[in-house]
Amino acid sequence: MEGTRGQVTGIDDLPVRDELRGKSPYGAPQLDVAVRLNTNENPYPLPEPLVERIAERVREAARDLNRYPDRDAVQLRTELARYLTRTGGHRVGVENVWAANGSNEVIQQLLQTFGGPGRTAIGFEPSYSMHALIARGTGTGWIAGPRDEDFTIDPAAAERAVAEHRPDVVFLTTPNNPTGNALPRETVVALYEAAQAARPSMVIVDEAYVEFSHGDSLLPLLEGRPNLVVSRTMSKAFGAAGLRLGYLAAHPAVVDAVQLVRLPYHLSAVTQATALAALEHTDILLAYVERLKGERDRLVTELRAIGYEVTESDANFVQFGRFADSHEAWQKILDRGVLVRDNGVPGRLRVSAGTPAENDAFLDAVRELKKEQSA
Amino acid sequence: MEGTRGQVTGIDDLPVRDELRGKSPYGAPQLDVAVRLNTNENPYPLPEPLVERIAERVREAARDLNRYPDRDAVQLRTELARYLTRTGGHRVGVENVWAANGSNEVIQQLLQTFGGPGRTAIGFEPSYSMHALIARGTGTGWIAGPRDEDFTIDPAAAERAVAEHRPDVVFLTTPNNPTGNALPRETVVALYEAAQAARPSMVIVDEAYVEFSHGDSLLPLLEGRPNLVVSRTMSKAFGAAGLRLGYLAAHPAVVDAVQLVRLPYHLSAVTQATALAALEHTDILLAYVERLKGERDRLVTELRAIGYEVTESDANFVQFGRFADSHEAWQKILDRGVLVRDNGVPGRLRVSAGTPAENDAFLDAVRELKKEQSA
Repeated sequence: MEGTRGQVTGIDDLPVRDELRGKSPYGAPQLDVAVRLNTNENPYPLPEPLVERIAERVREAARDLNRYPDRDAVQLRTELARYLTRTGGHRVGVENVWAANGSNEVIQQLLQTFGGPGRTAIGFEPSYSMHALIARGTGTGWIAGPRDEDFTIDPAAAERAVAEHRPDVVFLTTPNNPTGNALPRETVVALYEAAQAARPSMVIVDEAYVEFSHGDSLLPLLEGRPNLVVSRTMSKAFGAAGLRLGYLAAHPAVVDAVQLVRLPYHLSAVTQATALAALEHTDILLAYVERLKGERDRLVTELRAIGYEVTESDANFVQFGRFADSHEAWQKILDRGVLVRDNGVPGRLRVSAGTPAENDAFLDAVRELKKEQSA
Repeated sequence: MEGTRGQVTGIDDLPVRDELRGKSPYGAPQLDVAVRLNTNENPYPLPEPLVERIAERVREAARDLNRYPDRDAVQLRTELARYLTRTGGHRVGVENVWAANGSNEVIQQLLQTFGGPGRTAIGFEPSYSMHALIARGTGTGWIAGPRDEDFTIDPAAAERAVAEHRPDVVFLTTPNNPTGNALPRETVVALYEAAQAARPSMVIVDEAYVEFSHGDSLLPLLEGRPNLVVSRTMSKAFGAAGLRLGYLAAHPAVVDAVQLVRLPYHLSAVTQATALAALEHTDILLAYVERLKGERDRLVTELRAIGYEVTESDANFVQFGRFADSHEAWQKILDRGVLVRDNGVPGRLRVSAGTPAENDAFLDAVRELKKEQSA
């Protein structure tokens, strides 16, 4: 494209929306490091029989690839409903479940339906930063709600924020990312009620990491709460971050509503086939989750023994600190061959639970760092 | 979910956005009929060696599925650029290409970047109805621009509409869906200039069906036009509607800009692997395209011989009529076992070019219909 480069130097020379000017794309640095514990990926590759089953189901789907996929992904939603019913303590059916390309797309569809221009959403920060970014992308106003010093949510303060701002959408992330702690069930109930009192608003409980929790899923709260949505993902517990399969459970009317904004045939036939194969192997994948919970608990114990301050974790990652300069600490850990995440929480870093060997490498690195910084 | 059904009866009981109330989801009826010529699918299944190659590449990708996919899909964009360079008459590189889950998602990202609340987009109707629907989904105001009685665009009338409405985004679909006709290159150039004179605005040339055209791609127009975007899909020419792979070619700054709104890791590892496999088999897939062009031309000739009025077609489908009642005609053709599409264009229906046998079945059906209606 010679000749054009001279005329336009970058994004800001194009007629992009004003609020995008000067912004950069979301995403963790993708660095080539031996031990990558920065994006909460599951460290265990899928077992070989599942890999073979994926190849088999995709081969089958490929024979019909010239046709559009099942627009309503009925078989996949049926199997997801079965999984939730089995593990979530609450019976859900295909009519309660919707799926999309990652929970990010689920959330985007929810904000297009229930948020958008002239409406607002609240999240209690620090939390999953994509909630605010997807709000921006859908024209939804964003309200940063409060958390306490210890990263818990004070129900009274949160209820005051909801009453004051009257948001159309409330995000509750539990276990929370990047801090790791879970929300008590009573807090979720109280905030749902506060949100309904302020105006009829949707409450989205983001349970991306719930399979790693010491406690139970909040799925049973769906009973009698039509404005509640529980969002989930196959990226973490199913070890399938590369698959991009997110889903939600809610009242059937919510499932009907998001279909007004979903792009038709949004979920490809290969995605549906791969997800179905993974759901056939739920038990073995959940056994990896148990191993990771053990490793997560070990990280908490050992980090504390080394002398770090650690936030309680119900997820497959641990937030630790404090550091006078968390970016410098991040770099020093990276210099020792271990990539963790600096999520911008002052004085803290986040480490994903890896394999035992990866966690050992990480613990060695932070032990050395502690010695160096105490010296 | 007993107990909740009694409280909420449907979408309108939820706090959905006002503009969604009373709407229904987009999508052609999915009916179980022997001859389905309603969604412009490619009737030829992928050749078996390609099916095997897809299984092989997906197996490979599945071994790393616990990791996030390449966020920037560099290998896939490189191969798409190579394909465009080879077939489009214009050299493009990886930096000119962006890919997403279907051209619908490409268009959604473009409207999130260059349209959105307080901005408008124009399309010349009848055209691909998803342009208007995605505008609605992204809060972009929609302007229905004019076409002549014969479904061509009158450049003077179109330029007047652009000058009057000063849209931020201009959609030009060529070959146009559902009418089938292509836009002359000069009209595209004139409208690009009119759009830039009105305000700096983005012009999106939707070339979903260009491989079936008698003429050339408009890719060479990218030279020196940084506000021009050409969008493409693998759904039709690559016989991969089930894959959901759309892409665009544009100035590198456009590719940078859409990354501000794309959901991170939007394109799964299995989608990238499957698309790469299909791109390895471009030649055999383009041979099917040649067959379909022959069948499309046969449909035009035979429909005219039967006595129908047919719009010139550069696509893999044909618009024909006129019918006093096109819905009734649609039903009568369906009663004969052939599903075509009623796109709401008064007096017209659209038929996709199928296999020779499918097209024979369709021609028999409309021949009988003609006799019946002339009797």
